Amino acid sequence: MSENRTRRVGPASVKQQKWWGWGAEGIQFSFADKPKFAPFVMDVIGVDVTKPAPRVAELSSFDIPSTQLSEALRAALNDAIGEEYVVDDDEYRVIHAFGRGVRDLVRVRRGQFGRLPDAVVYPGSEADVVAIVNAAVDHDAVVIPYGGGSNIVGALEAVPTETRQVISIDMGRMNKVLEIGDASSLARIEAGVLGPDMEIQLNAKGWTMGHFPDSFVWSTLGGWIATRSTGMQSDKYGDIADITRGLRMVMDGQVLVLRPLPSSSSGPSVREMVLGSEGRLGIITEAWVNVHRLPPVREIQAYFFPNYDAGLQAMQWITESDAAPSITRVMDANETQFSMANGKKSSRVSHLMTRAIQEVMTRKGWDLNAIALGFVGYEGTAVHVRYEKSLVSKIVSRAGGMSVGKGPGVLYDQKKYDIPYIRDFLLDRGIPADVSETATPWGLLKQIHDTTVAAATAAMETAGVQGFIMCHLSHSYHSGACQYFTFAINDSSEHNMESYDLVKRAIQQSFMDNGGTISHHHGVGEEHSPWLDQDISPAGVFIQRKLFEGVDPDQRFNPGKIIHSGLPGVSSNSVQPE
Amino acid sequence: MSENRTRRVGPASVKQQKWWGWGAEGIQFSFADKPKFAPFVMDVIGVDVTKPAPRVAELSSFDIPSTQLSEALRAALNDAIGEEYVVDDDEYRVIHAFGRGVRDLVRVRRGQFGRLPDAVVYPGSEADVVAIVNAAVDHDAVVIPYGGGSNIVGALEAVPTETRQVISIDMGRMNKVLEIGDASSLARIEAGVLGPDMEIQLNAKGWTMGHFPDSFVWSTLGGWIATRSTGMQSDKYGDIADITRGLRMVMDGQVLVLRPLPSSSSGPSVREMVLGSEGRLGIITEAWVNVHRLPPVREIQAYFFPNYDAGLQAMQWITESDAAPSITRVMDANETQFSMANGKKSSRVSHLMTRAIQEVMTRKGWDLNAIALGFVGYEGTAVHVRYEKSLVSKIVSRAGGMSVGKGPGVLYDQKKYDIPYIRDFLLDRGIPADVSETATPWGLLKQIHDTTVAAATAAMETAGVQGFIMCHLSHSYHSGACQYFTFAINDSSEHNMESYDLVKRAIQQSFMDNGGTISHHHGVGEEHSPWLDQDISPAGVFIQRKLFEGVDPDQRFNPGKIIHSGLPGVSSNSVQPE
Repeated sequence: MSENRTRRVGPASVKQQKWWGWGAEGIQFSFADKPKFAPFVMDVIGVDVTKPAPRVAELSSFDIPSTQLSEALRAALNDAIGEEYVVDDDEYRVIHAFGRGVRDLVRVRRGQFGRLPDAVVYPGSEADVVAIVNAAVDHDAVVIPYGGGSNIVGALEAVPTETRQVISIDMGRMNKVLEIGDASSLARIEAGVLGPDMEIQLNAKGWTMGHFPDSFVWSTLGGWIATRSTGMQSDKYGDIADITRGLRMVMDGQVLVLRPLPSSSSGPSVREMVLGSEGRLGIITEAWVNVHRLPPVREIQAYFFPNYDAGLQAMQWITESDAAPSITRVMDANETQFSMANGKKSSRVSHLMTRAIQEVMTRKGWDLNAIALGFVGYEGTAVHVRYEKSLVSKIVSRAGGMSVGKGPGVLYDQKKYDIPYIRDFLLDRGIPADVSETATPWGLLKQIHDTTVAAATAAMETAGVQGFIMCHLSHSYHSGACQYFTFAINDSSEHNMESYDLVKRAIQQSFMDNGGTISHHHGVGEEHSPWLDQDISPAGVFIQRKLFEGVDPDQRFNPGKIIHSGLPGVSSNSVQPE
Repeated sequence: MSENRTRRVGPASVKQQKWWGWGAEGIQFSFADKPKFAPFVMDVIGVDVTKPAPRVAELSSFDIPSTQLSEALRAALNDAIGEEYVVDDDEYRVIHAFGRGVRDLVRVRRGQFGRLPDAVVYPGSEADVVAIVNAAVDHDAVVIPYGGGSNIVGALEAVPTETRQVISIDMGRMNKVLEIGDASSLARIEAGVLGPDMEIQLNAKGWTMGHFPDSFVWSTLGGWIATRSTGMQSDKYGDIADITRGLRMVMDGQVLVLRPLPSSSSGPSVREMVLGSEGRLGIITEAWVNVHRLPPVREIQAYFFPNYDAGLQAMQWITESDAAPSITRVMDANETQFSMANGKKSSRVSHLMTRAIQEVMTRKGWDLNAIALGFVGYEGTAVHVRYEKSLVSKIVSRAGGMSVGKGPGVLYDQKKYDIPYIRDFLLDRGIPADVSETATPWGLLKQIHDTTVAAATAAMETAGVQGFIMCHLSHSYHSGACQYFTFAINDSSEHNMESYDLVKRAIQQSFMDNGGTISHHHGVGEEHSPWLDQDISPAGVFIQRKLFEGVDPDQRFNPGKIIHSGLPGVSSNSVQPE
């Protein structure tokens, strides 16, 4: 039975996602203007999306485990930051119990809440965070930092067997750009700021951080740092690990202060230990980050290649060339087809494809089912953009591809944050869809792509479900690149998470078997922990464990993430049939 | 009394520096063809370098502490890697007891040997390193990895009070490029290879790693990784932390294996924990590194600026521009004067300065004592080099500077590894000279430069010695740069290390007080450890200590480096008067 305590809502200034899905209430994917979408989904996974989806249950229809917050800890938290910022309302506890991975959403929609936090607290300053941590230490509670809630690897939930009180620290009030160091192209920014709110503040002064992950709208600076995030324009602006130059982190009894430095040789990098620590070392409160003047010209150019291999080859050649574009992206045949099926009636992608371009392709003898769509982004002065475009244009031709202008790039720019909404649209119909990404050296790119697609397909066959997997190269580096896989399986049964696990695990194991990392930019959390010893070797896991044990001997800071106590194991938060 | 045991020399294939100075026997600095050098030194520090220097004492004239190698450990090491690779010859023990910092050289020339290693061992493979570590564990010995011996922060010496047996592991036999992954622009290289030997192997296949630290000739890949090294062309090729994509490290009972990955989000970066670990976590045996095709065109262009400020401004503008040169370097007035005084009679620097350029400067109203010489390096196709040069040329003009062609750049290229020889030339005359470098945000560059010069000058006055300090900007990053200070003091007394300490400490403290890091690329070792809590905050030192204690609870791997047991403290290896 749900015990409804005095209902308190979170501070109005803190944006909140739906408890049952991605994004704010009222925003969802629609295929109304996309005539090819429904036929495409029917074709590749056999699902009729034109049928209305069943309604998600009311939260109040579920038994929600009561808060276990003691009166003593409640009083201490109230003292620490003020009563209005200590919330134990059921809906807020549910929202803060999970990220927005497909497993999270399936569980929460089924009312399988696991170990909910006992309170959600909203610090407004680093001093507040210190006071919260002190209260947690005094009352033997566990603290879990919460940014935008977009995590998809199970990094936000308490250990299911946790017997101590659990406090979710929602950083949303700490959302300000505190300082822009014009003389140094650095900005000091509070950790809880969501992507758009941060860019608005920076843009107003003529600056940008240039960090645009797919989760941009619902993820925060602190979350990016804690998970080693990467953005769509990281080829130019660097991963968050490059962007973050200094930071502050609240620990038990002390505050880590790393001043902004362009580079340093002060022993093993503490900065790089905090990056990717997923809350296990402390609560990041603010960071000094590289910022850049808004570029005079920004352009995304689209290219078609006869096949994915040609596209990969072009992207590698671009990386080896004197050009340094902001985006290098190319889709395999499946994702190219998906992208065209996802085009609006009025979109130039479909427009271009039905007229001149398609004729050229046919004349060239291209297999229209094998073609690969690519995007390259350019930034700088007009002269520079022209120069780089000419370098890339020659490379694309050498790889057998052709330019199709700026139109599709504009479209890409508009739709870049849509994927989670499509994921939820399918989930509304019971269909699990998810993403997995990995980085490998260039020489292994083709192999890991083909092997992973084959492994996922075999797993779908084993599960006896129709499914679809597509992939794009999303980021290029000197010696390799990231490939980003998206898959969906037609299993809306109550056992569909078993099918999902078969496919997801086959993909992750393929990453391990083919020279990839377990995750390029989503982190480890609960979901990827079982593969960590294959990724960084048992000795690497040993080193991480010694770091966590030494710094947080009481396992008070987001325990159980990255490294389980019993590695190698499997995710402890399995989903039950309904 | 020196007890001369059976003399064994190291393997012929392993190059060895002099026991008393930088580089191989027979190579030294000469000012024979540099007419302005001696007058310049007389002018700035009042030392007459035309007088012959006293001879360095024979090593055999000193009492050399005997090896404490037990017969049991000797037998275990012999079994492990073969008798010919286990050396306890006095000279080799002395050579391996120190890096080549000024304090090291003063001590060794005075016969103050401290805690010499009891044996020097030369593994030929990772299996050999494992066998050595196993023997050390079995016999409770300490292991210290040794690359080229170029360390200048006291990272190679045993703790003075060490009671356990000490083994120096000279990695010099592990000097091969094992594999070049042409398809991925990666190479797998043994950790013990010296810079030139590595580049020769890479160049033969058309590749370069692009890492050229000042120590290049006498430093190794493993040493660069262990100290977070940076090279002269790191603006383009990245610091060693960027270049190193994977590695293997032998630990107690296990081997860390990090596969080559362009990027990853597998928790706190273990790769970045090994980088800068100075031997405290284990022995690095090999690494996967980024390699690049040798560029078609490579050019270094020289520029004069009316003063250092204008030069700094130009370098920052270059970093903000669309240009991405391989080298950005500008010298302050003192270093510009030194550079011109160090020119050969036939050199173009002096040539250009005495003719056309000097006239132009005078016409522009420049103060010839304030001018700043800068270098910018370009690499790529001829078209690209031309394009970037035109971008930079406009910036230099905007900053009030002027181009002086390629001549001085060629000269810079030839002399870039000379500084340690000049340091030893002065030390032969009793004059301590040393370097300190720091990175700061751009906005603090001028302040930290001026304050550091003032602090060093005040310290020289306090010490009552004439001295000289000069500086150049050596590396540029998006949000800041490294400034590299060189200083010399006219104190050849037996107490000159006290004067030296006053100056060196004033410089390091100025770095801390003005937003700099304790070292941009020389590491921490013994020398910089006392400032570490000011650099990365006490919480940062706490995190590093917990890492070291957790991973190496027996303090077997190069103990005492980076973090002393009693921080904050002072260097435990003080120099005594003769």
